[in-house]
Amino acid sequence: MSLVEKLMYEVEPAVRVSGGKVTVVGTGQVGMACAFSILTQNIASELALVDVVADKLKGEMMDLQHGLTFLKNVKVSADTDYSVTAGSKICIVTAGARQREGESRLSLVQRNTDIFKGIIPKLVEHSPDTILLIVSNPVDILTYVAWKISGLPKNRVIGSGTNLDSSRFRFLMSQRLNVAPSSCHGWIIGEHGDSSVPVWSGVNIAGVRLRDLDSSIGTSEDPEQWTQLHKQVVESAYEIIRLKGYTSWAIGLSVAALAQAILKNTRSCYAVSTLVQGMQGIDKDVFLSAPCVLGENGVTHVIQQTLSEAEKAQLQKSANTLYEVQQGLTY
Amino acid sequence: MSLVEKLMYEVEPAVRVSGGKVTVVGTGQVGMACAFSILTQNIASELALVDVVADKLKGEMMDLQHGLTFLKNVKVSADTDYSVTAGSKICIVTAGARQREGESRLSLVQRNTDIFKGIIPKLVEHSPDTILLIVSNPVDILTYVAWKISGLPKNRVIGSGTNLDSSRFRFLMSQRLNVAPSSCHGWIIGEHGDSSVPVWSGVNIAGVRLRDLDSSIGTSEDPEQWTQLHKQVVESAYEIIRLKGYTSWAIGLSVAALAQAILKNTRSCYAVSTLVQGMQGIDKDVFLSAPCVLGENGVTHVIQQTLSEAEKAQLQKSANTLYEVQQGLTY
Amino acid sequence: MSLVEKLMYEVEPAVRVSGGKVTVVGTGQVGMACAFSILTQNIASELALVDVVADKLKGEMMDLQHGLTFLKNVKVSADTDYSVTAGSKICIVTAGARQREGESRLSLVQRNTDIFKGIIPKLVEHSPDTILLIVSNPVDILTYVAWKISGLPKNRVIGSGTNLDSSRFRFLMSQRLNVAPSSCHGWIIGEHGDSSVPVWSGVNIAGVRLRDLDSSIGTSEDPEQWTQLHKQVVESAYEIIRLKGYTSWAIGLSVAALAQAILKNTRSCYAVSTLVQGMQGIDKDVFLSAPCVLGENGVTHVIQQTLSEAEKAQLQKSANTLYEVQQGLTY
Amino acid sequence: MSLVEKLMYEVEPAVRVSGGKVTVVGTGQVGMACAFSILTQNIASELALVDVVADKLKGEMMDLQHGLTFLKNVKVSADTDYSVTAGSKICIVTAGARQREGESRLSLVQRNTDIFKGIIPKLVEHSPDTILLIVSNPVDILTYVAWKISGLPKNRVIGSGTNLDSSRFRFLMSQRLNVAPSSCHGWIIGEHGDSSVPVWSGVNIAGVRLRDLDSSIGTSEDPEQWTQLHKQVVESAYEIIRLKGYTSWAIGLSVAALAQAILKNTRSCYAVSTLVQGMQGIDKDVFLSAPCVLGENGVTHVIQQTLSEAEKAQLQKSANTLYEVQQGLTY
Repeated sequence: MSLVEKLMYEVEPAVRVSGGKVTVVGTGQVGMACAFSILTQNIASELALVDVVADKLKGEMMDLQHGLTFLKNVKVSADTDYSVTAGSKICIVTAGARQREGESRLSLVQRNTDIFKGIIPKLVEHSPDTILLIVSNPVDILTYVAWKISGLPKNRVIGSGTNLDSSRFRFLMSQRLNVAPSSCHGWIIGEHGDSSVPVWSGVNIAGVRLRDLDSSIGTSEDPEQWTQLHKQVVESAYEIIRLKGYTSWAIGLSVAALAQAILKNTRSCYAVSTLVQGMQGIDKDVFLSAPCVLGENGVTHVIQQTLSEAEKAQLQKSANTLYEVQQGLTY
Repeated sequence: MSLVEKLMYEVEPAVRVSGGKVTVVGTGQVGMACAFSILTQNIASELALVDVVADKLKGEMMDLQHGLTFLKNVKVSADTDYSVTAGSKICIVTAGARQREGESRLSLVQRNTDIFKGIIPKLVEHSPDTILLIVSNPVDILTYVAWKISGLPKNRVIGSGTNLDSSRFRFLMSQRLNVAPSSCHGWIIGEHGDSSVPVWSGVNIAGVRLRDLDSSIGTSEDPEQWTQLHKQVVESAYEIIRLKGYTSWAIGLSVAALAQAILKNTRSCYAVSTLVQGMQGIDKDVFLSAPCVLGENGVTHVIQQTLSEAEKAQLQKSANTLYEVQQGLTY
Repeated sequence: MSLVEKLMYEVEPAVRVSGGKVTVVGTGQVGMACAFSILTQNIASELALVDVVADKLKGEMMDLQHGLTFLKNVKVSADTDYSVTAGSKICIVTAGARQREGESRLSLVQRNTDIFKGIIPKLVEHSPDTILLIVSNPVDILTYVAWKISGLPKNRVIGSGTNLDSSRFRFLMSQRLNVAPSSCHGWIIGEHGDSSVPVWSGVNIAGVRLRDLDSSIGTSEDPEQWTQLHKQVVESAYEIIRLKGYTSWAIGLSVAALAQAILKNTRSCYAVSTLVQGMQGIDKDVFLSAPCVLGENGVTHVIQQTLSEAEKAQLQKSANTLYEVQQGLTY
Repeated sequence: MSLVEKLMYEVEPAVRVSGGKVTVVGTGQVGMACAFSILTQNIASELALVDVVADKLKGEMMDLQHGLTFLKNVKVSADTDYSVTAGSKICIVTAGARQREGESRLSLVQRNTDIFKGIIPKLVEHSPDTILLIVSNPVDILTYVAWKISGLPKNRVIGSGTNLDSSRFRFLMSQRLNVAPSSCHGWIIGEHGDSSVPVWSGVNIAGVRLRDLDSSIGTSEDPEQWTQLHKQVVESAYEIIRLKGYTSWAIGLSVAALAQAILKNTRSCYAVSTLVQGMQGIDKDVFLSAPCVLGENGVTHVIQQTLSEAEKAQLQKSANTLYEVQQGLTY
């Protein structure tokens, strides 16, 4: 009689997969920051990691497992085989190639599309009801690519988008005002990165629009130069990469917040990349960020913001650029 | 065009029932303490309340709803009709009659059995895959009754049992030692209430058994009278009822901990009431508390403690008493 | 040698009072909901309860203590003597008389002022650096009274005010839109209760003002009757009292959120009752709710909202009414 | 009039340092995992980072700050100058040199002692009431060194010690039994690393000692080879370093748990490195891990475990080795 048999009477075998399972594909700095944010904030009941580099993968799994005693007992598993992801409610994709020197954007996207062709179908095969949360860059196009490859309905394919840009904006605002970032409200929408659009008309504290206090806010006329905040948002990814080599913590927290909203069906509103065809004058089938309501079945509603003509034009320009790249892709 | 239509573009209708739904039957002090503990600790993604008193029920629902802004957006609903409970992962039953003066135990149990006949089938009808968590007293017999009426497998019918007694014991131990209750280990098993059994052989701090420091611990020979701790555990329910009229907070937290272990599939070990036939020399089909491993499918394993003959005899005596009462019940 | 001496080597005596201590005065339904919200959300490191009814007080203390095993080991103490409150960072006052039938408002306030004269000086004596958080009703005047009696600087005397009214408003808004309350933004300011003022100009989702979608929102012209939301906020306290006898959960959560903002120095923005003399055309030294930034030293900043003339007039009217009552009080 | 002046009326300046401040020295993988674990679990109200590499330091600070919107508004600052650490309740030291190929242990410790001479006095200067939590390796000697250099009382200088080893042990135990790590109890004590001592007499589930089920557990006679668990604990640090290059997540969570116990005065019991002179037959003034009770003033009590002669001998051997190295150090 084994010790386990002496110690425990089995009433019923334990379940093999629990209901709050999340997969993270890619165990680089971004993937691990996502995984660790989800673990420490007790968002999932189970975490699966996938990567092609078996050693790194096993090392990260063991390192997380060794800390589980201090958490609420989430199960952590990892494998290079996608069967480990079976039954995931959310699959977070952080894998992808980085831009080579002199490489065109189309070439990069094509390379990542090829990588996604090896990832997305396997995820959907093992978790047909999953929601895909794409983090790899360029995120808007790759979310489109994941949508196309996966065959999933549009509400279940989401890009992390400008949720991080918005968070950066709110932090910078909080530094100027010495008010908590969660009490500083502002939305960055559109294309994640350089072409993102700050919606100045919505920037407010306690419902007080900064524009109502000074109508020049967000324009070049503003003596206090609040547009610098958006400029800093755009530059900060580059700056952090220059300073520490990569960005990780903030994107991890951003993605964990989205995962929480989905798993708990909170119906919270976040700026994520979604299919925006038919909105704000965009006629192409592209993904761009807008404030979306998230629930257990993904993006259920997109908030229709009141944008200026210039803001709409910027979105449409991004849409056209993305569309052109998308047209050049082969699957 | 309504304001909602102007504000939001619908991608997909929101889900009607989310995956982490919990029902609480009975909105008395115990039921509400359970509900509030679950809400404030972010354990469920959705909470349904049921009671026969429509006014009280609506009042409690509204009061909880008005605080949701400060929580993580759990949905709260309530109805006298059990359709509101549909799709619950766990149904917590706190409803039941109280003992009348001079009433026999059998009479009380029969009255509560009759009440359960109006509750349990409806819960199972609307949530066939649910786990029943029985809190109503006398909890051990009523868990058996719920098991019988429900037709559910034994792993999915659980009584809150001596989880609370064990928590009280650990708190009292923590007061003597000035060490955190969570670092004070001790288990009360058997029948919830007066006949419960403290397992002195397992009482320890950091793996140091108090019995190894002084072998008289837990006996009448002990000059420090540690047996007083168990005596206080037994008396404290009565004392609190005398002082404030009822007990609520601790049972609420105890039940919330069980709900968390189940919903998150943590595989944590708690003392709950389970079918103990065939264990510790018990030959009757009765429910008594023992340390159980909890997962998404309920009680999967029961820890087989190393008990003294006296401890076993006490368990068997409780089993026989419960069995006799059970024999007298009509369904 | 005692068992404790055998078990533990003392390096240094444990501290008697920890740095995150909170006191709750009054262990009625409101006081206990505040206490339980603070405990379950792990906001304080220590909780002291005070009441004049020794039995009830002891019963509540024991009931909370018995659940500590399931929490992160907060210390809970209680006494009718205020020395138990020594060293509190925040003192929450929920004690007070209720309005008698036919009693004038002045008479009620005078009776509660007399009660506060027995509470406030003792709190300040034992915790000279504390922040007073007043919950007793009528909260705006009683916060003023506490400020006067305590001699504390105005930033350290705060009324729970319309934080609850705002939370109710946001929940009702969330029900209309099926969006999380935390993503529904709206502020109720002014006098807590019937005369409170909804600031329609700030009501927004994701920075989109409802008024920008339909300028009649918040007026009697509005075909969708959004003003009903404020009406329901005002009526809901009465309705819940009619349905369940009192309100408790939502005010408990509201107060716990304020306590968290203060203890953690989060600099979050909440609608609380503060000295508003000199703001929005108010010239009297009265307390009314406005969006305030909270930190470790209490209210540090008040957000100056852009109000309509009608909104300002309503605030000034409330101010004058409160001022008159205050003039009639004897200390 | 600036926008801030229009927006906010200042009642009182905000505090500059809040009461729950934690400093992390060293922003390598270990330091950042500690910092991120503390942030995401809402343990501190303020976090200061210090490092000698200004670029990396700024990058890490910015990356953390950009995620604050998703957390409860903790303040994050960083500087190469130690004035940024002023007023810290806990200072976590992760800085230190790594062993060079062929370098003797004494040489490594001497180099790290020299580094500590540049760190510890500055920490104590800016936070004279702080608790030092040493994580740098070899942790036991470096905790002794920090104690000597700092001049702080012994209760306020703590090494992260075998808290991590114990957590690894509990995880491995949980894998064998399929029971949550937090319900698997076992203590690894003594020197952190290869010479650590598993206390088999205390290994238990629900108070059931594995040794009572099979007396060979933890010996070479055991057919199930439970000693492999300790062997794996010792090897796992090396294995993870081989696989991913370093260990980070588990040590971060381990340190965060200690920080929480101290800041919240929980009086929880953890295995940390403390001055063990006079215990278990150790006569030298060395630091080794034993189960300690942690509170706001650090280590207040050490649990006296019932050890076998072999276990005591191993501790004494470690003590003598450490002592010899300590004797060779110059300050």
